[in-house]
Amino acid sequence: MLPFQTLIPIDRNSTVPVYQQIANALIKLIRDGIIKPGSSLPGSRQLALLLDVHRKTVEAAYEELFIQDWIKVVPRKGPQVSQHLPEVRPHNFVPAVSSTPYTQPANFPFYTFGPLASLPGGGKKLRPVINDGLPDPRIAPVDLLLREYRRLFNQSSYKRFILTGDQAGSVSLRTAIIDFLSDTRGMTFNLDNIVITRGAQMAIFMAARMIIRPGANVLVGSPNYFMADAIFRQFGANLIRVPVDDHGMDIEFIEKFCKKQKPDLLYIIPHHHHPTTVTLSSERRMRLLQLIDQYGFPVIEDDYDYDFHYSGGPILPLASAGHNGKVIYIGSLTKSLAPPIRIGYMIAPANFIEQATQLRRMIDIRGDSLLEEALATLFKAGDMQKHLKRSVKLYQQRRNILCELLEQELKDVVTFTKPQGGLALWTKFRKEYPLSEISERAANNGLMISDGRMYDVDGHHFNALRIGFASMNEKELEEAVGLLKKSVK
Amino acid sequence: MLPFQTLIPIDRNSTVPVYQQIANALIKLIRDGIIKPGSSLPGSRQLALLLDVHRKTVEAAYEELFIQDWIKVVPRKGPQVSQHLPEVRPHNFVPAVSSTPYTQPANFPFYTFGPLASLPGGGKKLRPVINDGLPDPRIAPVDLLLREYRRLFNQSSYKRFILTGDQAGSVSLRTAIIDFLSDTRGMTFNLDNIVITRGAQMAIFMAARMIIRPGANVLVGSPNYFMADAIFRQFGANLIRVPVDDHGMDIEFIEKFCKKQKPDLLYIIPHHHHPTTVTLSSERRMRLLQLIDQYGFPVIEDDYDYDFHYSGGPILPLASAGHNGKVIYIGSLTKSLAPPIRIGYMIAPANFIEQATQLRRMIDIRGDSLLEEALATLFKAGDMQKHLKRSVKLYQQRRNILCELLEQELKDVVTFTKPQGGLALWTKFRKEYPLSEISERAANNGLMISDGRMYDVDGHHFNALRIGFASMNEKELEEAVGLLKKSVK
Repeated sequence: MLPFQTLIPIDRNSTVPVYQQIANALIKLIRDGIIKPGSSLPGSRQLALLLDVHRKTVEAAYEELFIQDWIKVVPRKGPQVSQHLPEVRPHNFVPAVSSTPYTQPANFPFYTFGPLASLPGGGKKLRPVINDGLPDPRIAPVDLLLREYRRLFNQSSYKRFILTGDQAGSVSLRTAIIDFLSDTRGMTFNLDNIVITRGAQMAIFMAARMIIRPGANVLVGSPNYFMADAIFRQFGANLIRVPVDDHGMDIEFIEKFCKKQKPDLLYIIPHHHHPTTVTLSSERRMRLLQLIDQYGFPVIEDDYDYDFHYSGGPILPLASAGHNGKVIYIGSLTKSLAPPIRIGYMIAPANFIEQATQLRRMIDIRGDSLLEEALATLFKAGDMQKHLKRSVKLYQQRRNILCELLEQELKDVVTFTKPQGGLALWTKFRKEYPLSEISERAANNGLMISDGRMYDVDGHHFNALRIGFASMNEKELEEAVGLLKKSVK
Repeated sequence: MLPFQTLIPIDRNSTVPVYQQIANALIKLIRDGIIKPGSSLPGSRQLALLLDVHRKTVEAAYEELFIQDWIKVVPRKGPQVSQHLPEVRPHNFVPAVSSTPYTQPANFPFYTFGPLASLPGGGKKLRPVINDGLPDPRIAPVDLLLREYRRLFNQSSYKRFILTGDQAGSVSLRTAIIDFLSDTRGMTFNLDNIVITRGAQMAIFMAARMIIRPGANVLVGSPNYFMADAIFRQFGANLIRVPVDDHGMDIEFIEKFCKKQKPDLLYIIPHHHHPTTVTLSSERRMRLLQLIDQYGFPVIEDDYDYDFHYSGGPILPLASAGHNGKVIYIGSLTKSLAPPIRIGYMIAPANFIEQATQLRRMIDIRGDSLLEEALATLFKAGDMQKHLKRSVKLYQQRRNILCELLEQELKDVVTFTKPQGGLALWTKFRKEYPLSEISERAANNGLMISDGRMYDVDGHHFNALRIGFASMNEKELEEAVGLLKKSVK
C-alpha cells in the first residue's frame, strides 16, 4: 500500500474542506500515475486511521471521486480506480495548481471598443483630483438611505419584494419620480412611461441600442459627452456633428440637415451641455420643437444636470412640451446622491418603455429593488428635496469660489463663462498653455487632471478642462487651483 | 394695470417655490395674450406689495423670465415683455399643466425584444410564489454588509474612492474572488483577467455583445436558460440547439457540428444546467475540452450555481483546465446573498477583459464601489465563506424536504431527478396534467407558479417547472406543495 499519510498532505488551516483536500490529492496521484488505473484503494476506515481523520471525511472524499468518475465502488471489494477515464489524456483536464489558462490573449474574433478616454482615477489615497463634475458624497443622505434599506430588508412584509421586485423598477420610486418631475419640470406621465436604470448612462445605452441601426445618422454636439459618442459608434452610428455655441446646439444646422435627409436620432443635452455647460436658449428650444414636429425624428434628451441650476429657474425640458412621443427623456439621481449609488430613469411612450424594460432585464435583470424602495421613502418624507435644496445652495457657492479663484490666480491662462448651473466649469486654456503638458506637470505636483483630449472631435483641439467644483470645499478648491497654477509653466 | 393679485395665485403649501409659481403664472398670462408683447410689467417692489411676497421673490421670478427670454429689462423703465418670442406659436412649447406628451405610442422605428417570458412576480403581499431558484435572503449577511458599507462611506480615506472607484470593479473584491475561485475551483488568474458585473446576467450580455455578429452560429442547450437565448437572439445570433440529457449537453452533437462548420460560440452551463439542473459528466467535460482545443471556438461557461453542490464536490469548471484562453468564465455572488444585491464577475484573457471593461463603462459606468469594498471585507473576514457553508447545508435539507413532499403528495403527477446541487428542482408533470391549466388553478388557490412555457424550444413542450426550494423553509415548502396538489385537478 502506498504511504498515503505522506502522499496526502492535510492542511487543517486551509479554507478547502479536508475531504476535498483528500479527493484532490488522490486525483493528483492517479493523474501522475502513482496510483494505477484499476487498482484498489484502501477502505475508508483504514485510510481514516492513516490520515488521522474521521471515517466520514474519507467517505465524503470517495463520494466525490465516485461522482467525478475517478473511482468505482465494487461491492465487498471497496473503492477501485476506474479503468478508462484517467488514461484518456488526463493532463488535458486536470488542472495543475500552476496552470494559468488565462495568460494567453483571447485570439477569437470579438468586437473592440477602446481604449476609451478615461478621467483621472482615484484609488484610496487622498490625492487632489479634478473630476469632471461629480457631486459631494459627504453631504449626501447616504446614512439615512442605508438605514431605510436595512429597515425594509428586515421587514417581513418585504420578503416577496426582495425576491422579485418590479421589472421596470420599484413602483414607489417611479411614483416619487413622477411627482418630482411634475413639480420641478411640469412633466406629466404615468407609471408605464418610466423605467428605472443604473444611472443616466444605462438609459442612454438602452435607448441607443433600441434606436440605432448600423449606418444610422445620429446628430450630436461638437463637442459632445464622449461616453455617448462611444455608445452610438459601437452600435454602428454615423455621427453628424452639430456646432455648439454659447446658446447651445445650432438648430439651423439641424434644420438644414433635415431638409436634405431625416436624421435617425438627435442626442441633445439642453441644460449644461456636456462638456461646455451651455444652456439651449428658449428660442432655439422652441425652434427645435417645431423641427421635431415637422420632421418627426426621435430625440434623446439627456437632462442629467437639470436639478442643479443657480441663476433663476432652468428652462423646461423639451419633454415637458408637446412632442408627440418623440422625446426620450433621461435623468439621473446619482448626481443628487453619491457616485456609487447609480439610479437614473428613462421617460418615453409606453410601447418604448415596455421594450426598454425587456432589454433592461437582459442586461442586469433589475436594479437593487430595496435601494429603490429606500430612496422612494426619502422622497416621500421630503428628505431628498431638502437635500437637493441644500446641495444647490452649496454648489452655487462653490461655483462662485472657483470662478473667483480662477480670476485671481489664472486670469492670463484660462477663459471661461460662469455656468448657470451644473457641477462643472468648462475652463479653456489659452493655446500657449497646452493641457497635455500641464496635466503631466500637475501629476508631478500631486494633482490629477485630465489632458482634455477626450473632448476633441473632428480634429478640433479645445485645450479645455471641465473643473468639477461641486465635490470640493473652499479649502480643496484653493488647493486644487494652487496646484494648477503651479503646473501651468 | 392688470389685477395681478388675482391673476397670480400663490400656493404656499406647494413644493414649487413661490418665485417659480409667479414666473409660471406670468408665462401663462403672456402666452394666453392677457399680457401683451412689448408691454411693461410692474416693478418688483410694486408687484411684491400686490402679491404680499418679499421683493427678492419677485426679483427671482423676473430673473427667471429674463433668462428664459420672456422679458427684457429696460434701464430706468423696468421689465418689459419681449416683442418677438411669445408670438412664434408659443402654444407649441409652453406646456399646459394637463399636457401629456407621452400618451401617444412611439411611432419611430426601434428594435423590439419582447415580450419575454416572465416568472411569477411578487409585489409586496405575502403570497406563496414558486420561483425558479432564488436564494433565501433571510439568512444572508445583509445587515453585516450594510454596516460595512456605512463604515466605509463615513471613513474619510475612502473619499476619493467613493468618487471614482476602479473601472473593472473594486480591486479588493477582485482579489477576494481570485482567492475564492482558487480555493473552490482550482482556478488561477490575475487582476487583469477579471471584471465585476451586475450579476452573471450582465456578464453574459457583455460577452455576447462582444462575440456575436449578426448571423453567428451559437450553440445552446435544448432547453436553455431563456434569458441567455433572448440576449443571443437580439444580437442576431442563429441558435443551434444541442440536445441535453441526464449527463448534460450532447458533446457528440457538438463534434458533428464542428466537423461541418466552426461554431462562433458555445454557451454552456456545466453545473446544474438551466433549466434541467443536470451536471455535465467528467467524461463529456474532457471530450469538450478536446474539441475546444481542436476547433478553437470561444465558450461562455455560465457557472452561476457552482457554489451550491450537495453530493460530494462539484466537478471543476472548464475554466480550470488548459483551454488556451478560449473559455469566458461567468459566476455570480447574487445567489450567495440576496436578489437585490447584484454582483457577478467575468474571467477571461486580459485583452478580452480590457474591452469588456470599456463596454461596462458604456453600460453603467461602474458598479457600486462601496458595496464591492464592503463585500470584499466580508470575504476577508471569512464571513462569506461561513455563510456559504451554512447555506449549502440548509439548502440541501430543503432539497430533501421538497423531494420527500413531492414523493408523498404528487407521486402520480410528477417525475424528477434529485439534483446534485443548485437551488431548484426540475419537476416534470405527466402530460395528463398540463401546467398551463395547473398554473391557472394555482393562481385561484393563491399560489403563483409559472406555466413553464418559457422553457419550450423548437416546438418541444416540456410541461415542466423549476421549483426553487432554497428560498422556502419547511413550512413554506409544505404550504406550496399542498397548494400545488390542490391545483392539479
